[in-house]
Amino acid sequence: MDDIIDQLTRVLMQRRDAPPDSSYVASLYADGLNRILEKVGEEATETVLAAKDATDSGRDNALIHEVADLWFHTLVMLVHLNQDPGWVLEELSERFGRSGIEEKNSRAESQNSS
Amino acid sequence: MDDIIDQLTRVLMQRRDAPPDSSYVASLYADGLNRILEKVGEEATETVLAAKDATDSGRDNALIHEVADLWFHTLVMLVHLNQDPGWVLEELSERFGRSGIEEKNSRAESQNSS
Amino acid sequence: MDDIIDQLTRVLMQRRDAPPDSSYVASLYADGLNRILEKVGEEATETVLAAKDATDSGRDNALIHEVADLWFHTLVMLVHLNQDPGWVLEELSERFGRSGIEEKNSRAESQNSS
Amino acid sequence: MDDIIDQLTRVLMQRRDAPPDSSYVASLYADGLNRILEKVGEEATETVLAAKDATDSGRDNALIHEVADLWFHTLVMLVHLNQDPGWVLEELSERFGRSGIEEKNSRAESQNSS
Repeated sequence: MDDIIDQLTRVLMQRRDAPPDSSYVASLYADGLNRILEKVGEEATETVLAAKDATDSGRDNALIHEVADLWFHTLVMLVHLNQDPGWVLEELSERFGRSGIEEKNSRAESQNSS
Repeated sequence: MDDIIDQLTRVLMQRRDAPPDSSYVASLYADGLNRILEKVGEEATETVLAAKDATDSGRDNALIHEVADLWFHTLVMLVHLNQDPGWVLEELSERFGRSGIEEKNSRAESQNSS
Repeated sequence: MDDIIDQLTRVLMQRRDAPPDSSYVASLYADGLNRILEKVGEEATETVLAAKDATDSGRDNALIHEVADLWFHTLVMLVHLNQDPGWVLEELSERFGRSGIEEKNSRAESQNSS
Repeated sequence: MDDIIDQLTRVLMQRRDAPPDSSYVASLYADGLNRILEKVGEEATETVLAAKDATDSGRDNALIHEVADLWFHTLVMLVHLNQDPGWVLEELSERFGRSGIEEKNSRAESQNSS
């Protein structure tokens, strides 16, 4: 499902060279790092607010929308700074995934997990 | 590369039922939503600071570290609220991926994309 | 100098009952708590960015501007929630001012401070 | 009431030259700008959360506490960067106070205000 981040990264890299008025992302790049970071901060606050307002039954579209905005603007930030979003996934994998996989394996030896 | 998010989500769901002292994530769940959201806010600020301090040559480990922390705590938040992180990827795909895929297709002209 | 906060509080209370289109503040009240808190979050991020960009000589107008925006929107938030900004000053006085005054007095016993 | 900010500023300036282990504020100065800004970001998020949890009757101690923390750490930031917190009050007075004073004058009709 989520080579979506790879795909999105490629789109964001393509738009880096496009004229500022060609897309929202191109205009963000042109505005520069501070404007991109303002958006990261805004979307983090909006995520916090949407989480406080979340109801616990089924998909909460407002919250999903805000988290998508937050992740998206961090991707724009990374690409703007010539950082590969794949490195973030690698870091997550090294720090959390490994212990998770080990934990899963050691559990799987004696029982199934749902 | 990045079914890492799927894998990590499964680990986060397993730890939701574990005793609070069994892992950092289990302790976050036990502390509750406000503590998780405080961490989202903290990591957003640390991401902004690391981005301001970023140098533009090669992998910036400090920035990658902070973005990993930010994404990680948003995943914990989503799982805590019974939201599937896959929905965020779907949302990103629908909003941004589609135009990206169309762009890619029009460039590829005669090639299939997975 | 700074019964400015008292004065400003009175203005903010007057505008709470005014029509939404009568001023920026009246429109914020009408938009509601989430919009006010989004502004608090935005101005906090802009303060952080301005502080990182600050130069160390003389008055930094950009930073002063952002801190004024941040304090202002926290005042709007307090008045919107029927909280007296004077209580915040009291809290600051109790927690930090007392020890500060004691510290100053104990120093003053043996020497002057500028 | 609120020459509290003036008083607090003087305390913060005194502690700037004190050894890092002599007080919380002295340790913040020693940790440097990024640590101070992390605290500003943290307290902004905690203010947002406390505001969402606020009940509308009487003094909300949790919210007052968080706003005091937020204002306090912005004061530490200003003093660390050699900026006079009084300039922020001046800026507030110029931007918002003036219209407030005009409003007050037009209501008072024949009275002077200091």
